[in-house]
Amino acid sequence: MPLYECQTVKGTLSERQRQSLAESITSIHTQETGAPASYVHVLFKELEAGSAFTAGQVATPAIIRGQIRAGRSQATRHAILRAITDVYMAVTGADANAVVVAVVDIPASWAMEGGHIFPEPEQPPEVA
Amino acid sequence: MPLYECQTVKGTLSERQRQSLAESITSIHTQETGAPASYVHVLFKELEAGSAFTAGQVATPAIIRGQIRAGRSQATRHAILRAITDVYMAVTGADANAVVVAVVDIPASWAMEGGHIFPEPEQPPEVA
Amino acid sequence: MPLYECQTVKGTLSERQRQSLAESITSIHTQETGAPASYVHVLFKELEAGSAFTAGQVATPAIIRGQIRAGRSQATRHAILRAITDVYMAVTGADANAVVVAVVDIPASWAMEGGHIFPEPEQPPEVA
Repeated sequence: MPLYECQTVKGTLSERQRQSLAESITSIHTQETGAPASYVHVLFKELEAGSAFTAGQVATPAIIRGQIRAGRSQATRHAILRAITDVYMAVTGADANAVVVAVVDIPASWAMEGGHIFPEPEQPPEVA
Repeated sequence: MPLYECQTVKGTLSERQRQSLAESITSIHTQETGAPASYVHVLFKELEAGSAFTAGQVATPAIIRGQIRAGRSQATRHAILRAITDVYMAVTGADANAVVVAVVDIPASWAMEGGHIFPEPEQPPEVA
Repeated sequence: MPLYECQTVKGTLSERQRQSLAESITSIHTQETGAPASYVHVLFKELEAGSAFTAGQVATPAIIRGQIRAGRSQATRHAILRAITDVYMAVTGADANAVVVAVVDIPASWAMEGGHIFPEPEQPPEVA
């Protein structure tokens, strides 16, 4: 169920960069959480030119949003946020100010994959 | 406000399959929750080929995410998850392992439709 | 990090309408929350014709979803919901029943932008 969605303006990412980012994000998630890679999905979505705005002006932000199982520690979440920001900048050369990464919790029981409801993660939940 | 978004790689779903899934998802939601169909929205979004990855490799997952009013029971949520998974597999022939369905809560007061803030659902909230 | 995503069927919005809506949504958010405009992102996404359904039938809803830092008051959220609904209807002439606006909280610590985790908002959290 971990699902990472990366939104950029059309033409921002090459096929090779998407492949590289998908591998890196999957690797970051599995290393930080212990989850098997087979459940990690990464989607790339392109916005039309002139369809993204920052401060009310046409811009080219990269918006990466992960949806993960609730119950991971803040340290795990922050490690994921940091590592994805760093790898995105390294792969694309983007400026930090144009890179937004969010990692959002959803309870394990809110999702079904492979025909099964997800189990709760093994580490105890911490206060967000 | 119930909003269901179905993401698949371009070419996965025919017009007829989209129509069939939209009708089924709407029917599942109204039957399980009692909400009127006029508030149920279903959106289909296509990813470019080579833009979806599972386990770091190009793949063709189907990602269906619902956003519903908080306060439904776990039994209702699980019935929705199961029924949508089943109907998606029946309509498309997809393998269960490539079908991810999530149903996410948002408080009724976080949304406006038809110019009105949504009322809370009638059944009492249960612990997720 | 405040991120507003507007989904409409292809051809619904002109370039000028997108620009106008982006400016208005940015202005509404900054006025209601005091957040600096430089962090406000607005994305417009187009669905293919025949890819949006309401009540199981092909339709042309406008779905606008904001993701803001948790901790804003209900009054602030409702002012944002109302103002975005109103401006969308004014700019496009859309019927209120086809305009869905949601403003969803995420804790500040769940996002990173400009290489930094976001601070908590200054006003005290209120019960949603």
